[in-house]
Amino acid sequence: QMGWGDLGVFGQPSKETPNLDAMAAQGMLLPNFYTANPLCSPSRASLLTGRLPVRNGFYTTNAHARDAYTPQEIVGGIPKEEILIPQMLKKKGYISKIVGKWHLGHRPKYLPLEHGFDEWFGAPNCHFGPNNSSRVPNVPVYNNSEMVGRLFEEFEINRKTGESNLTQIYLQEAVDFIRLQTEAERPFFLYWAPDSTHAPVYASKSFLGKSQRGRYGDAVMELDDSVGQILSQLKSLGVDDNTFVFFTSDNGAAVMSGPNESGSNGPFLCGKETTFEGGMREPAIAWWPGHIKEGTVSFQLANVMDLFTTSLALAGVSPPDNRTLDGLDLTPVLLKEPQTILNRPIFYYRGNELMAVRLGQYKAHYWTWSNSWEELKKGINFCPGEEIPGVTTHEQKEHTMQPLIFHLGRDPGEKYPISRISPVVEQHKKTLVPGNPQLNMCDVAVMNWAPAGCEKIGKCLKVPKSEPKKCDWPH
Amino acid sequence: QMGWGDLGVFGQPSKETPNLDAMAAQGMLLPNFYTANPLCSPSRASLLTGRLPVRNGFYTTNAHARDAYTPQEIVGGIPKEEILIPQMLKKKGYISKIVGKWHLGHRPKYLPLEHGFDEWFGAPNCHFGPNNSSRVPNVPVYNNSEMVGRLFEEFEINRKTGESNLTQIYLQEAVDFIRLQTEAERPFFLYWAPDSTHAPVYASKSFLGKSQRGRYGDAVMELDDSVGQILSQLKSLGVDDNTFVFFTSDNGAAVMSGPNESGSNGPFLCGKETTFEGGMREPAIAWWPGHIKEGTVSFQLANVMDLFTTSLALAGVSPPDNRTLDGLDLTPVLLKEPQTILNRPIFYYRGNELMAVRLGQYKAHYWTWSNSWEELKKGINFCPGEEIPGVTTHEQKEHTMQPLIFHLGRDPGEKYPISRISPVVEQHKKTLVPGNPQLNMCDVAVMNWAPAGCEKIGKCLKVPKSEPKKCDWPH
Ligand SMILES: [Ca+2]
Ligand SMILES: [Ca+2]
Repeated sequence: QMGWGDLGVFGQPSKETPNLDAMAAQGMLLPNFYTANPLCSPSRASLLTGRLPVRNGFYTTNAHARDAYTPQEIVGGIPKEEILIPQMLKKKGYISKIVGKWHLGHRPKYLPLEHGFDEWFGAPNCHFGPNNSSRVPNVPVYNNSEMVGRLFEEFEINRKTGESNLTQIYLQEAVDFIRLQTEAERPFFLYWAPDSTHAPVYASKSFLGKSQRGRYGDAVMELDDSVGQILSQLKSLGVDDNTFVFFTSDNGAAVMSGPNESGSNGPFLCGKETTFEGGMREPAIAWWPGHIKEGTVSFQLANVMDLFTTSLALAGVSPPDNRTLDGLDLTPVLLKEPQTILNRPIFYYRGNELMAVRLGQYKAHYWTWSNSWEELKKGINFCPGEEIPGVTTHEQKEHTMQPLIFHLGRDPGEKYPISRISPVVEQHKKTLVPGNPQLNMCDVAVMNWAPAGCEKIGKCLKVPKSEPKKCDWPH
Repeated sequence: QMGWGDLGVFGQPSKETPNLDAMAAQGMLLPNFYTANPLCSPSRASLLTGRLPVRNGFYTTNAHARDAYTPQEIVGGIPKEEILIPQMLKKKGYISKIVGKWHLGHRPKYLPLEHGFDEWFGAPNCHFGPNNSSRVPNVPVYNNSEMVGRLFEEFEINRKTGESNLTQIYLQEAVDFIRLQTEAERPFFLYWAPDSTHAPVYASKSFLGKSQRGRYGDAVMELDDSVGQILSQLKSLGVDDNTFVFFTSDNGAAVMSGPNESGSNGPFLCGKETTFEGGMREPAIAWWPGHIKEGTVSFQLANVMDLFTTSLALAGVSPPDNRTLDGLDLTPVLLKEPQTILNRPIFYYRGNELMAVRLGQYKAHYWTWSNSWEELKKGINFCPGEEIPGVTTHEQKEHTMQPLIFHLGRDPGEKYPISRISPVVEQHKKTLVPGNPQLNMCDVAVMNWAPAGCEKIGKCLKVPKSEPKKCDWPH
């Protein structure tokens, strides 16, 4: 949810991320790093599986080129056939923990401990409302496979003041986990996934009102501070030289949420939900003292799916050979030759439609769409303040015969179309085997009414009658 | 002409300014630094006089709120009553040189050596066309008070390839001047004003094609390299510890010139010619090893006029007391307390109309205008790809009764208006004594037909009949 332009090192005028900026100065900055999808759930599914959402099932075919994620009504989740990072790392004795938002399905079979994680502290869905459990349950907070409370209830987020100490709880979980594994001399994988920069944005009392940027900036400062504390913990335990740390975000800043509830995509067009650069270019920093040369910048085109392949390479685990992986092993770039650029495309999807592709500095749009006129008329704007005729279109516009092409070096803002690419895309399309779409069906009965463990703490809610229906994805 | 977003340290994705980024790491970055006007001539007049264009005469009243500069037809120039930095520094024995574009009037009485500079190598006007001296003379290049050739003639700029070694000549002039003054143990003031990032953008052969950003990026790389060489020269001569160096630009990136001929204003709205942030927020770095703490960031609201007052303070010269100065002495911020912020407004003018003011994080627009519908229809767009209803207006829209207010911390892109300021502005308006406008009158006869020295080199052209007329300022 953090945007490319939210870090000082990426040009945020407020320069309020001293810890992330220092992390970059001690490590490698990747200005050409992407997510696999401009939305949270598919992006996270790709990070953990090393595969595009269209392969791992995190997409919808309910309508053409729709963004979809896992709200509480969702029926689907991460298929059991998918292999996640922690499952692979287990082969080398790693213990794995996720702290924070999961978002790969909240029904029991989809939860983290069913998919290779040994520990989990956090929420299965996104924390936006409601604030009571009447029409919709508040999202539960799990400790491992049992809930320990609900957001807005035991885990307070004050919608009015924006105060919540959830990030501090997540931080404590992280540093404790690191300490315990280090003491036990166990190799570990920590997936730290806080969500305070997602609307409703929240921060702890000691950060509220501290930034130049309002509540969103306060949340960014707290995350920055947390990253600083995690790196400090690694240093003080003496394991900074054998711990690979990577910082990135799941999608571009949600600029449709307005200035108090969203961040900056720097010079890039539009934001979250779109396949323009603002939706998918992410801040990214790799850190590993003594292994990654300090103060380097790599212009490698890279993405979250590379973290799957790269983590495996670092742990000495061979990648699964019975499926297509979309990630590259970045270790040659990270550890040896930051200036060598591996040739590879970046694909931009909405649903199962390939909207755009980037090759080198060139990006070709096969389809353009921001959101519909209907939404726009209601005040939902994916590109506030930006309008590029024929580019930020409000109808789905096809350009497959004559792709809209931009040179992202000269024109990072995608304002000045030029012309043509193609064979890599044909190859990609020909060899693509779509996974079974998980985000088509919704049912009020599958919500978090009564998650495992709810009895113990008296937090079960009555499950309503099942009413399966096609989910509605308006943009 | 360089934009805020053109430096790596300010978020340019290409990260192609290693020398400027290093200068920032060794000195102080000022993310809230402004020019006095979104256009070249008034901005430079303000830098050298420490006064707003509306005071020093660098504005027009031909029509309401018009941008104006000094083309070859201009009659006016910097008035003799104005006091420039080099005139003040002379009191302490400084020798002063300008290298590059002057732009404060090209008629003999307006030239640099008539206004306190001891030396000059460069051009009096901007280098855009034509490429021959028929309808309009090509701009002369002066060495001190005599021309030594013309642009596109003795000083080639290849419009097709973009090749010109002018920046290398300017660099040589700078390093030679620094060496000579250091050897003679004379205090010096060097105003290094290259113009290669102004359309038509040019670069030397060794930089052409080297950047990720096309020709504009090549020019930026050459300027960055030149700054690196100037700082190296200071270090190798051992005078880095007693030389104050400041880097900034005269106006925001000229985004109307398109991606090959203009730069980036980062997260800011619109560009050159406008009083939105993209027009007036400038990249700025202060450098003085041993005096300015390395790696500092100051959020002080500052501007080019402060360089007048600050330079005098550094040289131990009292500022003139017989006129209003708009610049602050920044030495407390630069040398002592980077985190102390001096309270002061930033004024944004077009002609003699106060378009906007910034106080702290708040900016109020009294008038909004990008450019006219007529120009826009011709394809001249001051905010390409950006459109904020009621903000980037194509008619001059008055908001004096209810200013359009933005919080630049939360909303650096000026997309989300909020409400109200005022007493500082009233005070400013009440006490303002406008100077005599220098940019109203034009005459074909005052062009650079026969500048001083043209006889010696056989470069004089016939001066046509005088035809004084009001200059036309369409935006
Ligand atoms: Ca998200
Ligand atoms: Ca200029």
